Amino acid sequence: MGTSPIRKPSNPMVNGFDPSRLDELPDQMQKSIRRRDKSLGPGYRLFYDEPLEIVRGKGVTLFDRDGNEYLDVYNNVPSVGHGHPRVIEAVHQQMQTLNTNTRYVQESILDYSEQLLSTFPAELGHVMFTCTGSEANDLAMRVAKYVSGQQGIIVTAGAYHGLTAEVSSFSPSLGKGVPLGPNVRVIDAPDALRYTSDQGSSSDQGSLQDHLRDQVRAAIADLHRHGIGVAAFIADSIFSSDGVFAGPAGFLRPIVEEIHAAGGLYIADEVQPGFGRTGEEWWGFQRHGIVPDIVTIGKPMGNGIPVAAAIFKPELLQEFGKNIRYFNTFGGNSVAIAAAQAVLDVIRDESLIENALKVGGKILTGLKDLTQNLEQVAEVRGSGFFIGVDLVTDRSTLTPNGEAAASIVNALRQDRILISACGAQGNVLKLRPPMPFSSDDADRLLEGLGRAFKALR
Amino acid sequence: MGTSPIRKPSNPMVNGFDPSRLDELPDQMQKSIRRRDKSLGPGYRLFYDEPLEIVRGKGVTLFDRDGNEYLDVYNNVPSVGHGHPRVIEAVHQQMQTLNTNTRYVQESILDYSEQLLSTFPAELGHVMFTCTGSEANDLAMRVAKYVSGQQGIIVTAGAYHGLTAEVSSFSPSLGKGVPLGPNVRVIDAPDALRYTSDQGSSSDQGSLQDHLRDQVRAAIADLHRHGIGVAAFIADSIFSSDGVFAGPAGFLRPIVEEIHAAGGLYIADEVQPGFGRTGEEWWGFQRHGIVPDIVTIGKPMGNGIPVAAAIFKPELLQEFGKNIRYFNTFGGNSVAIAAAQAVLDVIRDESLIENALKVGGKILTGLKDLTQNLEQVAEVRGSGFFIGVDLVTDRSTLTPNGEAAASIVNALRQDRILISACGAQGNVLKLRPPMPFSSDDADRLLEGLGRAFKALR
Repeated sequence: MGTSPIRKPSNPMVNGFDPSRLDELPDQMQKSIRRRDKSLGPGYRLFYDEPLEIVRGKGVTLFDRDGNEYLDVYNNVPSVGHGHPRVIEAVHQQMQTLNTNTRYVQESILDYSEQLLSTFPAELGHVMFTCTGSEANDLAMRVAKYVSGQQGIIVTAGAYHGLTAEVSSFSPSLGKGVPLGPNVRVIDAPDALRYTSDQGSSSDQGSLQDHLRDQVRAAIADLHRHGIGVAAFIADSIFSSDGVFAGPAGFLRPIVEEIHAAGGLYIADEVQPGFGRTGEEWWGFQRHGIVPDIVTIGKPMGNGIPVAAAIFKPELLQEFGKNIRYFNTFGGNSVAIAAAQAVLDVIRDESLIENALKVGGKILTGLKDLTQNLEQVAEVRGSGFFIGVDLVTDRSTLTPNGEAAASIVNALRQDRILISACGAQGNVLKLRPPMPFSSDDADRLLEGLGRAFKALR
Repeated sequence: MGTSPIRKPSNPMVNGFDPSRLDELPDQMQKSIRRRDKSLGPGYRLFYDEPLEIVRGKGVTLFDRDGNEYLDVYNNVPSVGHGHPRVIEAVHQQMQTLNTNTRYVQESILDYSEQLLSTFPAELGHVMFTCTGSEANDLAMRVAKYVSGQQGIIVTAGAYHGLTAEVSSFSPSLGKGVPLGPNVRVIDAPDALRYTSDQGSSSDQGSLQDHLRDQVRAAIADLHRHGIGVAAFIADSIFSSDGVFAGPAGFLRPIVEEIHAAGGLYIADEVQPGFGRTGEEWWGFQRHGIVPDIVTIGKPMGNGIPVAAAIFKPELLQEFGKNIRYFNTFGGNSVAIAAAQAVLDVIRDESLIENALKVGGKILTGLKDLTQNLEQVAEVRGSGFFIGVDLVTDRSTLTPNGEAAASIVNALRQDRILISACGAQGNVLKLRPPMPFSSDDADRLLEGLGRAFKALR
């Protein structure tokens, strides 16, 4: 095969390394990236202008090959902290005992399922295990189509729900290289800043709700005009890839009402906000005062051991489950469940949801103070440990400023603080640390952000 | 929700427990199954007339709650043996060090990828990591459609390739509850016993190849008649769910020639036969003297830690990888790679491929001896540690006998030997032990099979 040239992706991702600048990197890094390109090929992307080689992690700290420490304000998979001793121990014990599948009876999956379901509204009574959030969303949509007898899907404009053929067809954030399905319609992200200011009223909850209701009605009408009924509206309750939209609480309600009226289901994708990250409740949809028909969960569930799930109103599975068997070889296997159980225990025992509210609140307040006079910061928003900073060219036009975001993300990386960006134009800083992030960590982060914003001016 | 009644599935699976017989089980088991039904719902299935509660595994042995030992002749995920100390240790070390994703550079995934690729023909040069075989097949088919610009898929009549919306649409073994896609065509399983005897010539390689070539030509013509071009032929190289068809070697060649001539790709699904299980080579397709365009691997790859992959001819990924980013959060994470590396090392260091050939050969010969005068056994076939026993009502009609298979599977389970069945009518005993299965284990298995066959007469 030889060494193929490393090409610039035609569909670049937010905060992705530009392979055409490979020659500017240190020798060792160049060598590793060339090996990556030769073995893994051009589908893989790296973070940052100067990618990182990570060799160790502990708590909220990552270490590179040279022993440099980085404050992790990005990784949500190691949700209870890198290398948490209770997760390590639970996995090790289970690895020594048994690792098998759901076609044998095992008590641990029953114990875990009952505890997990107790964190949800009583209407959500069945859980099915998968390995990834993508598989969970794929299954959720199969069930929604089966139950509704319809095919139409409505998502927000910058949504990301996963990577299977089906799920990528309703993940517009993957960009023009991945076409949306003919049965998919998009509505605006719930961007209170822009939609309410367009309408001349400052963060007025009513006007955002009206705007979203109009949007979803138009999407349903357009589907119907094409002879397509509505199977589901699916949304990440924190709208991570859209640009982090936590409030005003309740804005999802009119969308769900319209979807239900059209015979479709509401699928809450909790892969990003779930397991208490938003600091108030276990699940992001709860802040909107609604009960989803299906919920999908993933990333933080096993602190890095692959495990995910879909949770259903039981009546949705009666016919589906009888007619369609679903066996996921690794899904909910003994070790995955052991990891998931440890994560659930740690979140409770270490009061990590409370910590997300407290320390997340400190970061939110600190960032608002820090940026109140910055023309390039239109809004600081979020909930708990999911915070977005909306960067613009100026506050009057609110034009998204992806360059400023990239500049801050990379300045922080050089300052050994790891964050990333999101939003349609990559203009929203995304802060999403492991949940044992402390008040001191928040101070370090705010100091770093202060330096980065100063350099921007 | 209360307790929902446990319903009999309308689409039963081979060797599945019939929930309508719940009342016949011991109290403790009834209680556990009711808890399962309440939390996990009706989509889950259990094995055997009397399901097993498994609490521990070691090597080729499983233990139930009462301490009873079972000889495992079924589980291919713990391929190097349940609880292998080197896998446990590798996972434990890595869990303590780091578990992160492919958007940071890590040396271990490069080392593993290079070693893994070295087991493939030189034409296959890129590997992309997923968590499950389903995700690997979903990705493989996305690439095949992208590269070919076509949508048509050809599979064998009893094929199983996975559980995503896309992949289940070309997995006919899921039964009538899961419709095939309008772009999917099926060809006969490569059943040399039946197709060559129909034509009056005993195990004649030529006639099976001719039959398969005719079948695939007809499928391609039918796709074309519907305006659909051929994207891919995908097949499990051991045809596990079809009923285990290992030979005669070379029967895949005419199919692949026809597919290539029609502009489609050949995807070798090695999730079942891969990693040396068939005892001759690392990969099942190698016995047919062909090089696939894409290979997918999974189940045994991490001995139970979820990890899978697709391997490509690099030219297939050049455009796809540039235009479509593929990030699988857990796919190839640090711990998954540590497990996979340990499995690769153990297969080599413990000569497990050689063991599969030797001990698998002993089982095959022993079974042939055991059944040579049994009217209900039409054929014993397979390769290495993948063996099928084709049960019929009688050798003259070759009518598949699923009842006899179920009876033997459940008799062996009561005898504490775990096997299962496959094939369109569930009439083929499926023997597929963890790979450290010893000559003594083979003796115990053959004695058990002897008793079970005797009881059948």
